[in-house]
Amino acid sequence: MFSKYDVIVVGAGHAGCEAAHAAATMGSEVLLITMNLQTIAQMSCNPAMGGVAKGQIVREIDALGGMSGIVSDETMIQFRMLNRSKGPAMWSPRCQSDRMEFALNWRDKLERNPKVSFWQEMVTDILVKDNIVYGVKTSLGLEIHAKTVVLTNGTFLNGKIHIGEKNFGGGRTGESAAFGITEKLVSLGFESGRMKTGTPPRVDGRTINYEAMQEQLGDENPEKFSYTDTPKLEKQNSCWISYTNLAVHEELRKGFDKSPMFNGRIKGLGPRYCPSVEDKINRFAEKDSHQIFLEPEGRTTIEMYVNGFSTSLPEDIQYKAIRKIPGFENVKLLRPGYAIEYDYFPPTQLKLTLETQRVENLFFAGQINGTTGYEEAGAQGLIAGINAHRKAHELSAFILKRDEAYIGVLIDDLVNKGTDEPYRMFTSRAEFRTILRQDNADIRLTKKGYEIGLANKERLDRVEEKIKNSEELIHKLETTKLSPEEINPYLTKINSSPLREKSTISSLIKRPEIGIKELEEGNVLVQEITNTYTKEQKEQAEIKIKYEKYIEKELLMAEKIAKLDEVKLNTEFDYMALKSLSIEARQKLTAAKPMNLGQASRISGVSPADISVLMLYLGR
Amino acid sequence: MFSKYDVIVVGAGHAGCEAAHAAATMGSEVLLITMNLQTIAQMSCNPAMGGVAKGQIVREIDALGGMSGIVSDETMIQFRMLNRSKGPAMWSPRCQSDRMEFALNWRDKLERNPKVSFWQEMVTDILVKDNIVYGVKTSLGLEIHAKTVVLTNGTFLNGKIHIGEKNFGGGRTGESAAFGITEKLVSLGFESGRMKTGTPPRVDGRTINYEAMQEQLGDENPEKFSYTDTPKLEKQNSCWISYTNLAVHEELRKGFDKSPMFNGRIKGLGPRYCPSVEDKINRFAEKDSHQIFLEPEGRTTIEMYVNGFSTSLPEDIQYKAIRKIPGFENVKLLRPGYAIEYDYFPPTQLKLTLETQRVENLFFAGQINGTTGYEEAGAQGLIAGINAHRKAHELSAFILKRDEAYIGVLIDDLVNKGTDEPYRMFTSRAEFRTILRQDNADIRLTKKGYEIGLANKERLDRVEEKIKNSEELIHKLETTKLSPEEINPYLTKINSSPLREKSTISSLIKRPEIGIKELEEGNVLVQEITNTYTKEQKEQAEIKIKYEKYIEKELLMAEKIAKLDEVKLNTEFDYMALKSLSIEARQKLTAAKPMNLGQASRISGVSPADISVLMLYLGR
Repeated sequence: MFSKYDVIVVGAGHAGCEAAHAAATMGSEVLLITMNLQTIAQMSCNPAMGGVAKGQIVREIDALGGMSGIVSDETMIQFRMLNRSKGPAMWSPRCQSDRMEFALNWRDKLERNPKVSFWQEMVTDILVKDNIVYGVKTSLGLEIHAKTVVLTNGTFLNGKIHIGEKNFGGGRTGESAAFGITEKLVSLGFESGRMKTGTPPRVDGRTINYEAMQEQLGDENPEKFSYTDTPKLEKQNSCWISYTNLAVHEELRKGFDKSPMFNGRIKGLGPRYCPSVEDKINRFAEKDSHQIFLEPEGRTTIEMYVNGFSTSLPEDIQYKAIRKIPGFENVKLLRPGYAIEYDYFPPTQLKLTLETQRVENLFFAGQINGTTGYEEAGAQGLIAGINAHRKAHELSAFILKRDEAYIGVLIDDLVNKGTDEPYRMFTSRAEFRTILRQDNADIRLTKKGYEIGLANKERLDRVEEKIKNSEELIHKLETTKLSPEEINPYLTKINSSPLREKSTISSLIKRPEIGIKELEEGNVLVQEITNTYTKEQKEQAEIKIKYEKYIEKELLMAEKIAKLDEVKLNTEFDYMALKSLSIEARQKLTAAKPMNLGQASRISGVSPADISVLMLYLGR
Repeated sequence: MFSKYDVIVVGAGHAGCEAAHAAATMGSEVLLITMNLQTIAQMSCNPAMGGVAKGQIVREIDALGGMSGIVSDETMIQFRMLNRSKGPAMWSPRCQSDRMEFALNWRDKLERNPKVSFWQEMVTDILVKDNIVYGVKTSLGLEIHAKTVVLTNGTFLNGKIHIGEKNFGGGRTGESAAFGITEKLVSLGFESGRMKTGTPPRVDGRTINYEAMQEQLGDENPEKFSYTDTPKLEKQNSCWISYTNLAVHEELRKGFDKSPMFNGRIKGLGPRYCPSVEDKINRFAEKDSHQIFLEPEGRTTIEMYVNGFSTSLPEDIQYKAIRKIPGFENVKLLRPGYAIEYDYFPPTQLKLTLETQRVENLFFAGQINGTTGYEEAGAQGLIAGINAHRKAHELSAFILKRDEAYIGVLIDDLVNKGTDEPYRMFTSRAEFRTILRQDNADIRLTKKGYEIGLANKERLDRVEEKIKNSEELIHKLETTKLSPEEINPYLTKINSSPLREKSTISSLIKRPEIGIKELEEGNVLVQEITNTYTKEQKEQAEIKIKYEKYIEKELLMAEKIAKLDEVKLNTEFDYMALKSLSIEARQKLTAAKPMNLGQASRISGVSPADISVLMLYLGR
């Protein structure tokens, strides 16, 4: 009853939505299959997008032509640029979202894409012949064929929910788990594992005493994720901060003997940097207090998300403990916190396109690859969607490098290093983080997005204008000089050393205490030069002037490494036969099948000495 | 972990929402428990409210202070007053709703009610001691106590979904069924049964050829459900009409051997007036065609509801058959149609307050009582919520009589006649339908709603003004005379017989072809009299003048029957000992425990002769 599709996407979370949208926008006929059309693009965990390193990923998705940035902008209720006081490499956009609006907005975006079709059912099997996937099979027994298949099953594969000593099957509370896919993949030779994650109780905001908490407002001049002209955020909602204390910890400890975390019932590893509250007080017994961050679930709903209080302790323990937190003395719970275990597939079984090594035309994206986070999922969905489309149309692989995008770092880490605990992005994972900034994702990526048919011409025009104008502005600032008389009164006023001779404006901008904005205030000439440029263009010029040295250094290093990436390796090369390699390197290289020397060098366990051996062997 | 509530409502569909809202508004501390807070107030079947007799119920709910009318008004995308060409007793408001908005709006209404608390979990048991309920128990083992409990479990109790030869547990597709409650109730001596209902496939509106179908627009001047000042509907969406044909029927018949309806797998009876399409072509084999009514699921979504094509045939049969319907040649399905079987409890086990006879303080509302329809469910929820509140506060029962409201007819039918197939309201079920009009529900009921603390003062003021003004207007129209010279030119123009002598305006209004509007057009004096009155007040006056005779007759009959209602019966009376009653009457009366002679007279199987025996016995 179904015609053959180019791409089938299984699952409609952050990964599935980006995958379906990308492949369809590029021209594939896409079928998006979900167990429930009502629950497309759910924010299963906290109602927020972005954050440190994650915000950069959202901007990269947007720059390439993905939708997470636009959907976030259109449904956000608070925006903050984190780390504004640090260098621009650390600036990270983050928003609070209206959870319901976010989901409805994503569904609307997909429905407006004429190449996306929908089907509501559970996929229970994938159809594979001669190690090539050709479709999926549903719980009703329907066989649906496609050239490529993207699996984005999230926490649903054999999902098992734990609360205290109780546990039951489910992909989220109130929703059924999915069965059959893991078993089929394992029968095809895939290695699978178990991971766990958790979520805090949701509470009734009407029962919170906000006066006992610290209010966190949004930015005064909120920015956005998308480089397109999404609407400016006008009205913002607040978040609230409180802290646990010893009384809270004591209550929580009373449930430890019933905790599925501590009595061995949960086998999978949880996210290291987003631990449950019981994990925190257990691992950091010396700490008397942990931060609690209360996030609104939407513009009007009373439901609030208790970030920092993820737990799978028995619900009565959750209740007694949370009430000891200042501000929560009379709180009513709406839903209990819980932990969930689910199947994942170690991502070393993937290519950098997110196609599996073992089964051709089959792609994995999101939590199925062992990651955590909406942004990490969305990024993988985008890359899997792009490559599923390109494979279906016999086009070359689309791969982002580590010096091009956090998305490149993410996928390279997953494929080459693997992960045995939920993988989350950090700025520290990127060796080129001065290049991979949130402000230049469009400059880095929009042209690539345009070339593959994902980002539209309007986006390209915008970024080209930004590049042209910011370079023009840099040139002006580097060639226009100010005399001591012109600027010294202002410099003195702001406690910056006065000039002794005429100097370029750019040399002043290199001072830490001075930026374009300061000079505009202090000098009419600067105002005249800059006043035709947009805020973004000025910001771009300032960053490039201020951080010129660092950027150059990173670019140089990236170039060197890029040369390694240019040295192609035969993915079928017999490393076991190359006895001068260490045994670990032989095994890891055989498993990872790197496509080039650079990739080989980033595999954990492959040493610089092993790389030298390979270079020697290749005659370099 | 929970304090004791006044009222616990289990389930958050149309019945549960009205019950929770009503009890809380009247002052009870209410806990609303649902398996999933994301799915409050789902329109599980078609995206519409009202219709013949059902629209009257929505207006009655609104008049009493319930929310279904307001929520419908605020989220509707089309409005039609059905049967406008018939007498006002038949006028029935109906709207198309934006399904997502409807659900979100209801949730918002409940969240804004400070006395409604929420908890997300499955209720698996009710706590009963000495035949008095005192709370519920959840799947996590939590015991939550309350003075009264309202069960509104819809299709979830042991829900089983059928599609062709496949079947699986579920309360709706993608959602788990609920277990435990039926078993407990049966162990307490309740009789339970199975019913079934069904739903059609949902389709992708982008794949419909609308040119092959007939468009159905909304009313030119759309009215509303609520008597309050909800916003006027500005922009309307269309519905579309098509028809099945012999080719469709032939395709459907190919699946009959796999139909769970015809091979005995489904045991419960389905809704007689909303049958599956296979049932229609099976039962009415002589009909070559059945109407298909395509309803939009919302303002913007591509999802469409195929009213008239409810089916549980295998999904490939659904697909092949639907594509033979004109306009559906290239349609893509989004979700398959299915049938669902669920437990209900014959409502003869209830009192007129919807409290169970067997267990004190336990109330049932909605599909659990064997009804079908959002409106029937909402009405029961309202009455159960009101009485659960009143019982919790030791106040008297709140019962609407058959001559007061369709809601009275509904509950009286259920309790006294019972039902073994899903019960739906019709105008023909009401013996006083000239009184029970959609235009006067506020006049009939708002004072009652106000007296019990549900409808607010503003509503009462509104209706009192409407009564005062319409009566004043009637008086003017009955006492002001028009001369032949003044009106005959107009009467001649509209082909109405001219006057021979001065006559009252009201005598002209009694003519079928003339209403206030016509006279306003034809005569300046009438304009002067009416121009200070609202549309509703004029309509009220006109109906009362035009239908005076019919209304008087019904009022008289209602009065006679009311006298029977005044003759109280001891609910513990031993009918078996009264041998002059027919055996059937003795059994039925014993089972039904009528509260008065009127109620006894409406029990099916109790004849007028039996009533005479009882009157004799009571010394009347």
